[in-house]
Amino acid sequence: MTIASIYKPIEPEMIRLEENLDRIAEAAASLGITEQLNHILKDGGKRIRPALTLLAGKFYHYNVESLLPMAVAVELLHTATLVHDDTLDYSQRRRGKPTINSLWGSSITILLGDYLFATSACITSETGNVRIGKLFAQTLMDICSGEIDESLSPFNLKQGRQRYFQRIGNKTACLFSMATESGAVLSKAPEEVVQSLKSYGYNLGIGFQIIDDILDFIGQEEIVGKPVASDLSRGIFTLPAILFLERPESNAVKEVFNQDKQEGARLMREMIHKSSIAGECYRIAQDFCSQACLALEPLPRNTAYNSLIDLAEYVIKRKS
Amino acid sequence: MTIASIYKPIEPEMIRLEENLDRIAEAAASLGITEQLNHILKDGGKRIRPALTLLAGKFYHYNVESLLPMAVAVELLHTATLVHDDTLDYSQRRRGKPTINSLWGSSITILLGDYLFATSACITSETGNVRIGKLFAQTLMDICSGEIDESLSPFNLKQGRQRYFQRIGNKTACLFSMATESGAVLSKAPEEVVQSLKSYGYNLGIGFQIIDDILDFIGQEEIVGKPVASDLSRGIFTLPAILFLERPESNAVKEVFNQDKQEGARLMREMIHKSSIAGECYRIAQDFCSQACLALEPLPRNTAYNSLIDLAEYVIKRKS
Repeated sequence: MTIASIYKPIEPEMIRLEENLDRIAEAAASLGITEQLNHILKDGGKRIRPALTLLAGKFYHYNVESLLPMAVAVELLHTATLVHDDTLDYSQRRRGKPTINSLWGSSITILLGDYLFATSACITSETGNVRIGKLFAQTLMDICSGEIDESLSPFNLKQGRQRYFQRIGNKTACLFSMATESGAVLSKAPEEVVQSLKSYGYNLGIGFQIIDDILDFIGQEEIVGKPVASDLSRGIFTLPAILFLERPESNAVKEVFNQDKQEGARLMREMIHKSSIAGECYRIAQDFCSQACLALEPLPRNTAYNSLIDLAEYVIKRKS
Repeated sequence: MTIASIYKPIEPEMIRLEENLDRIAEAAASLGITEQLNHILKDGGKRIRPALTLLAGKFYHYNVESLLPMAVAVELLHTATLVHDDTLDYSQRRRGKPTINSLWGSSITILLGDYLFATSACITSETGNVRIGKLFAQTLMDICSGEIDESLSPFNLKQGRQRYFQRIGNKTACLFSMATESGAVLSKAPEEVVQSLKSYGYNLGIGFQIIDDILDFIGQEEIVGKPVASDLSRGIFTLPAILFLERPESNAVKEVFNQDKQEGARLMREMIHKSSIAGECYRIAQDFCSQACLALEPLPRNTAYNSLIDLAEYVIKRKS
């Protein structure tokens, strides 16, 4: 199962999505930021979020003239958050390429992120749909809240699963659910179906982020495309760390943390590698993806339905 | 003429504006950013932009329940741009206080700026008005474009007045015109009056920015509340510099610039001080403020009208 086969029902639109992103970069030529925008926008991402908008729009009145711009707006909002993220954590690489920040410095990175937020807001507002406007604003707010929570409480040994799920819900899953909800709303799906697709998106997003967090622990840098084990060294405890901290054998590590954070992080990573925690995290991610699929029950069956089911499996199995 | 006397027709609403800003800071307590938000939001700004929204709303159906949130959103959008600005130019002080960036570092500054954008977008979307949603998005886009143009072309000796006016139009005047246009739209003013108030806001904004740029040349730091002469040393040529570069006596300075930018900037500042350029800039700012007042001709006469006329005079005479 490849991502291309999953995207089959929306193949022509995914090509148009790329063309739209090209045009957005070209339109900024007079500002002198086309090169940077191309660097960010043509970075080999899998385009899962815009694909979700298009697939979610395939069940009722599929109107490509509103769904395609919405898919573009979703991808731009995602990209904007990545760009600002790279400034926050001083990342050098993402998806196998140097970050904007490492190439052009933090000032332009901040401005490019803002520009992408603004472009996304403009395209979203052009739908002329009040509900979509509110959804966009609330999603932006949720993402910011998630980022702030993550950045401002490093090395907090006491945060539990609940706070982690809330944080990744804000940071990641909200945008997945915005993607599916907007597709459903713009295709005039009945409210019950809107809620189903929203729930699918949210649960898929949680599953997706857990896998991301597992890959940061066990993935190989050349496959994942960005430095691995970066979260823990910055004091961000993701699910593997949180599950470890629940176990009695973590007490010794906690004491090391209080003395020397980097040594604590090194030791924790080593002990997690030797444990069954990665498997446990996979099972939790799998549960969220199963929930996502269950939420689709009320939907009519079509090729888009099959793609959404396959996507939930793809998200679990992905290696990058 | 004091700012308090100009705000007399909207005095109770300006108090409620402050209360709303307080509540926004308090609402972020769970994220741990209340202190920083209070620092930014209670910084002794003159609140000209939200006052413009409220005053512009005073001519037809004054509905405080939609106008007040809009005024809050306008102030938050302005504040968000200030916060990111401070990261871009590494400012140490603004309005007589240390910047967020100098107190807490750039990561939180970026996140706080994003949080303020998001809060502004949420409040704006709550108006449920499609036109206002589009206006917000377009204004954000214009501000970003202005900031990018300013940041990415430092020490460009060839930029003329036209580019300067376009840049400050984007960077500053668009938000002034969003403030007045939104007030007019939400108070259900006839389209002709909406356009009048929009034009007033835009011209006032240009005048306001020119005065800001003059003060950066001739103001005293303890009165202006931020380091003066900072634009030129960062290679940002504002109106005084552009008028100077049009004169034949600038040729010698241009040559110095090609050798040593900071020495060029020092010399240019010295020659501008000795010239009649500040007066010339004042006259241009005055012209824009007169245009602003002329645009108000079609409006009914009331105390808000008088305040808008007085505000145009205040903007010219201000020392900080």
